[in-house]
Amino acid sequence: MAIDYDKLMSLAIPEREQAYTRKDSALYALGLGVGLDPMRKADLSFVYEHEMKALPTMAVVLAHPGFWIRDLDTGIDWVKLVHGEQGLTLHKSLPPEGRVIGRTRVTEVIDKGAGRGALIYTERRLSEAATGELLATVRQVSFARADGGFGGPHRTQPAPHALPERSPDAIHDTSTSPQGALIYRLSGDLNPLHADPETALKAGFPRPILHGLATYGIAGRAIIEAMAGNEPDRLIELDARFTAPVFPGETFRTEMWRDGEIISFRTRCLERDAVAINNGRAVLRPEP
Amino acid sequence: MAIDYDKLMSLAIPEREQAYTRKDSALYALGLGVGLDPMRKADLSFVYEHEMKALPTMAVVLAHPGFWIRDLDTGIDWVKLVHGEQGLTLHKSLPPEGRVIGRTRVTEVIDKGAGRGALIYTERRLSEAATGELLATVRQVSFARADGGFGGPHRTQPAPHALPERSPDAIHDTSTSPQGALIYRLSGDLNPLHADPETALKAGFPRPILHGLATYGIAGRAIIEAMAGNEPDRLIELDARFTAPVFPGETFRTEMWRDGEIISFRTRCLERDAVAINNGRAVLRPEP
Repeated sequence: MAIDYDKLMSLAIPEREQAYTRKDSALYALGLGVGLDPMRKADLSFVYEHEMKALPTMAVVLAHPGFWIRDLDTGIDWVKLVHGEQGLTLHKSLPPEGRVIGRTRVTEVIDKGAGRGALIYTERRLSEAATGELLATVRQVSFARADGGFGGPHRTQPAPHALPERSPDAIHDTSTSPQGALIYRLSGDLNPLHADPETALKAGFPRPILHGLATYGIAGRAIIEAMAGNEPDRLIELDARFTAPVFPGETFRTEMWRDGEIISFRTRCLERDAVAINNGRAVLRPEP
Repeated sequence: MAIDYDKLMSLAIPEREQAYTRKDSALYALGLGVGLDPMRKADLSFVYEHEMKALPTMAVVLAHPGFWIRDLDTGIDWVKLVHGEQGLTLHKSLPPEGRVIGRTRVTEVIDKGAGRGALIYTERRLSEAATGELLATVRQVSFARADGGFGGPHRTQPAPHALPERSPDAIHDTSTSPQGALIYRLSGDLNPLHADPETALKAGFPRPILHGLATYGIAGRAIIEAMAGNEPDRLIELDARFTAPVFPGETFRTEMWRDGEIISFRTRCLERDAVAINNGRAVLRPEP
């Protein structure tokens, strides 16, 4: 079965409503390694309900529609799917607890040609259930490796955000826990690849890998701490390309460049010197 | 205000109903350090929903009535309260998900005399909500340091379970995570002492301490793995005395002695050679 461009572009993906609590916000942060040093003051407000602030990247797990590419009639060979890019725009501060509605749609499908795969662009608009107010827009690019040449529009893929050539303006190292993937998956992405050694082996990994979106959250948290005075509300955009799988327990170095309110970044795993996220681009709200 | 024996013995402690999921069972296990080695096969069934078994000690956090000693009219100086002992009897296997009702009552109050405190014995009967079937009986002894000499019965405290004099028959070491207390508290005990460095300092600790009941769960898990073939259902009783505070991230050595189906045990923190649990007694269901 091949992709039908018009059908995919108009696919009705079920909306999802989710209530979340401060406990969920803490659990999300713990999955990123926040709190590994319990005396670290910069961490406390993300894991302790009395001072709780949500990490804005938690928006990527809220009101998630699930694995609709597999579960709906999409024509996509989901086994060959790879998470390519992730983006996020915050329209207002993400509350540490609340009830939200996620509405997901396919925004573009790019045919890279037979044997070269296809790119599926989706967008999830996250609103507060009570007011209908838009909280965040979550963008995702999935690379459907087996679905090139379906006859869709052969558009040019946007160029990745170029990182500056100069030395980084700031560097932030994040320790993670060997339990990281097991904790992170409780925020919603239960793919066995991140828990079951056998599934990981079958997929070609020596052990369960960390979620790409956990690395994404780690990068966001590094930027908030190093570039935004640890004020999560100041991070209003975050775009990243996933370039290598990483493992829970590894140490992640985020290199950052500041140009006005634009932060360019890259996150690498120190132990294996593997670049996990490249061509990263964040936007900060100006300091009040 | 002092304790009124008859009033306390007939105190109506609100019953509590709680639904829990496999995610909650995994979260409980993660708080005990289970999954710190993601390749460790003995851990997987406690953190991975497809093979999920509940650790029986999770019964101590389910349908918990909360801090009723503080919140109800008990006459107890709750600030001076210390968790002294914990016990548990499993009447059937604890399911990895379900809905349970907890009914708590005071079963005895022992007046140790003026200046010597009082012992409050409570019992929580945990039943399946749907069938009413009794799942577990949870026993707790709280030491009310400031409430001795209230005029209650001066009964003799039962003697602690004596450990054998011979060398242990088995030893099990458990690593824990520095995030342990932050994870464990999401299972219900949100006492700031386990998260907030300032609160810990005020209570006389250099940093947040681990929950006594987390150490209790760690000991239970050690016994299940070392003495019961990693079959959680075989642990049907677990009694322990808390003897020293411990910190998340420390390593716990559980020494065990087997006499028939009785396991005697003691759990110490290796880094500071502090005995966290003493006079422990477990009962195993005979091997099938």
